[in-house]
Amino acid sequence: MLHWDQSTMMPAGGAQMRAEQLAELKVIRHELLTDPKINGLLGAAENEKLDAWQRANLREMRRRWRNATALDPKLVEAWSLATSEGEMAWRAARPRSDFAAAAPVLKRIVALAQEIGAALGAALDLAPYDALHDGYEPGGRAESFEPIFARLESELPPLLAAVLERQASRPKPVQPRGPFAPERQKALGLKLMSLAGFDFEHGRLDEAPHPFCGGVTEDLRLTTRYEEASFVSDLMGVMHETGHALYEQGLPLAWRNQPVGDARGMSLHESQSLLMEMQACRSRGIVEFIAPLAREAFNQSGPAFEAENLYRLYTWVAPGYIRVDADEVTYPLHILLRTRLERAMIAGELAVSDLPQAWNEGFLKLTGLKVPEDRLGCLQDPHWYGGDFGYFPTYTLGALTAAQLFQAAVAAKPEIPERLRHGDFSPLLGWLREHVHGQGSRHTTAELLTLATGRPLEPQPFLAHLRRRYLDE
Amino acid sequence: MLHWDQSTMMPAGGAQMRAEQLAELKVIRHELLTDPKINGLLGAAENEKLDAWQRANLREMRRRWRNATALDPKLVEAWSLATSEGEMAWRAARPRSDFAAAAPVLKRIVALAQEIGAALGAALDLAPYDALHDGYEPGGRAESFEPIFARLESELPPLLAAVLERQASRPKPVQPRGPFAPERQKALGLKLMSLAGFDFEHGRLDEAPHPFCGGVTEDLRLTTRYEEASFVSDLMGVMHETGHALYEQGLPLAWRNQPVGDARGMSLHESQSLLMEMQACRSRGIVEFIAPLAREAFNQSGPAFEAENLYRLYTWVAPGYIRVDADEVTYPLHILLRTRLERAMIAGELAVSDLPQAWNEGFLKLTGLKVPEDRLGCLQDPHWYGGDFGYFPTYTLGALTAAQLFQAAVAAKPEIPERLRHGDFSPLLGWLREHVHGQGSRHTTAELLTLATGRPLEPQPFLAHLRRRYLDE
Repeated sequence: MLHWDQSTMMPAGGAQMRAEQLAELKVIRHELLTDPKINGLLGAAENEKLDAWQRANLREMRRRWRNATALDPKLVEAWSLATSEGEMAWRAARPRSDFAAAAPVLKRIVALAQEIGAALGAALDLAPYDALHDGYEPGGRAESFEPIFARLESELPPLLAAVLERQASRPKPVQPRGPFAPERQKALGLKLMSLAGFDFEHGRLDEAPHPFCGGVTEDLRLTTRYEEASFVSDLMGVMHETGHALYEQGLPLAWRNQPVGDARGMSLHESQSLLMEMQACRSRGIVEFIAPLAREAFNQSGPAFEAENLYRLYTWVAPGYIRVDADEVTYPLHILLRTRLERAMIAGELAVSDLPQAWNEGFLKLTGLKVPEDRLGCLQDPHWYGGDFGYFPTYTLGALTAAQLFQAAVAAKPEIPERLRHGDFSPLLGWLREHVHGQGSRHTTAELLTLATGRPLEPQPFLAHLRRRYLDE
Repeated sequence: MLHWDQSTMMPAGGAQMRAEQLAELKVIRHELLTDPKINGLLGAAENEKLDAWQRANLREMRRRWRNATALDPKLVEAWSLATSEGEMAWRAARPRSDFAAAAPVLKRIVALAQEIGAALGAALDLAPYDALHDGYEPGGRAESFEPIFARLESELPPLLAAVLERQASRPKPVQPRGPFAPERQKALGLKLMSLAGFDFEHGRLDEAPHPFCGGVTEDLRLTTRYEEASFVSDLMGVMHETGHALYEQGLPLAWRNQPVGDARGMSLHESQSLLMEMQACRSRGIVEFIAPLAREAFNQSGPAFEAENLYRLYTWVAPGYIRVDADEVTYPLHILLRTRLERAMIAGELAVSDLPQAWNEGFLKLTGLKVPEDRLGCLQDPHWYGGDFGYFPTYTLGALTAAQLFQAAVAAKPEIPERLRHGDFSPLLGWLREHVHGQGSRHTTAELLTLATGRPLEPQPFLAHLRRRYLDE
């Protein structure tokens, strides 16, 4: 709530105080979790006869305890200071494209991340990179995603080339002309959120510079931003966050406030936002449903508001330098590069000083684009400068998971696409509630996916989805 | 922040979760405060050489510790349960004017309040009622306010009669005709808040069903409500809360998050809201300044918007049954009755079953009005049903303090009234910052008042203010 308030409501002068409030709560939480009594209590409980949910709950408690106690408090403090400094350095360096200015603190951050990876790895019996990745994706291992990423690396570039060639032979879509009043954009977003199943008795939508989904199961706080010039992209942003929110709203209430009642991990969370946005809302069927709602909301018509034009806008493929602006075909290429580079840095095989060159060479090879300046290259994302090593793979693991879950949902309930075409999300939501949301953290991500889809994670559904949508295969 | 969010932003479905979050924070705070180490640490510090601020800070710490440790946790829990139940019973009973329905739980609450008063009193060396009153007004004692209240009891009824007689001989003011759009009321309120010195870099104004002032010094959250039918009363509500907020915004930043950096007590806090509302903003000078702003804000004119009419509205005296609607002449009579009755209940001299009769007899004697039903009598306020015994006197102590402080401010800076007439609050605010806000909890309330005005609290400035404003004396 304090984070949400900070982004949506707080006056500027409250920033320092809020930082102190959040830090204080963090310290209290850490003290509760690392209380000397906890280890013995966990050990005693582990010897009890428990049902499956209780056992999973205990496993998650043990995992949190292990993560909280594995690190020397001095290392945690050094990390906190360095990553705060790193974020500030990144903020100053990016607009000036001045990598050299941020390199010294990034070098320290990488050294600390290596140290943390080694210490966590020793406690968790994992390789250092896996130990870091595990913090975002419990149970996630490089040896599991590596073969999948290798396949994407070999198949995506030719697929992208084929998509671009086909796209070039067809008329370009046109952007609807604004200005689009924020309150009308908001009304349209609220309507779609409602249809998708968002429960406004237990949540709300506000504005913030960076869209996010926060709060708790009974009180979800979504944010978005509204550009007056175009509603097209922000509307999908709302549906992306709605996917996150539906996951949170569907978590098992019986295990509220217990670790097993929490969402499973970053890749599954991202899969829910991407399933909503990419699999459902950018489909031709839903865009045909949205088009008349948009005409009505903005009291406009004409070719730009035709469903076919909007659909082409929502599936336009255009490789570029910036990850957050990437279409779903290009996006994984960004992730492949970052994952390779961060693994090399943690392994000590890539020096921070060599990062820009490695980035630019890798990006050229994957996309054919020559990075003109670091602002559009290795300075574009805050992640590493804020200490997020091991996070990037979850974006693409999420995209793959979304495709695999959506495929399984449609196989189980073949009416889903036709019902979506009429703005009825309920069969899809019902399937997700049962197989994903309501499971909380009962299973590992891999187990959940196997139970829900019959198979472990594989790249095939995602690649088939791209070929169907972008190549009509 | 969680309380503010609960009243302004939270969706209805978040209520249960929010109650649990607040309860959890309360438990953590209590545990921190009653940690067995604290007593020894306080004792060691009390033997150190300290400056005046440090010593006052330590005194406030000791006071909080003593209050937190004086009560058996079981008594605290029983109290918490009974007063929650009492509030719910009151909410159900009031609309039906059904005192009998709320009486059993009120009886239990009174018994528990007696027990708490005795236990706290033993720890603090105070009489039971004083121990309860001390929780709202540190250092406040019945023997101090009793002579003052006695004087009000003898002087106010004839004064009220004289005011009503004079008022009856003059034309009645007319209410400006709405509807008044909430956003225009808000704009006018924001303008006055700004002039009064509210710092919007460190605070904001929102809507809530019950106006309040929450948050922290660097981030003050004010709320108000807007009736479309009339702006007159709600505008003064905003200025009342602004008075509270200016106190909080002016607390000594050097002692932020320390007990001595907090506001002194309820009567001083209420004095700041009443000084702003009653002494400053309902004065003829400021109403003359507000009148053209109101005409401009609502794009209206005519007799109802003339300064003289607005001033008569803002100083209209009309004794009635309901305390929160009372004018400043009648208001203390409400408090005198409640104070006498709650002292009698805590002393065991008035049984809960006899409360309605005692209320109605007392009210008739003080105001000449015969209470027709308990909804308009002893069921009108939530205080006792929620366990607030010892709180009521602070309203009138606040009104008296406001008059005495305002008189001293004007004596020190004679330009204050003329500057207020031009919408310039800065000399008044400057004096309050120095003599009240910036003092935090360094002094007791009595010491602060003596330092600021040269005298302990007395009823004379308040009575003189009423005679000047309402009898032209």
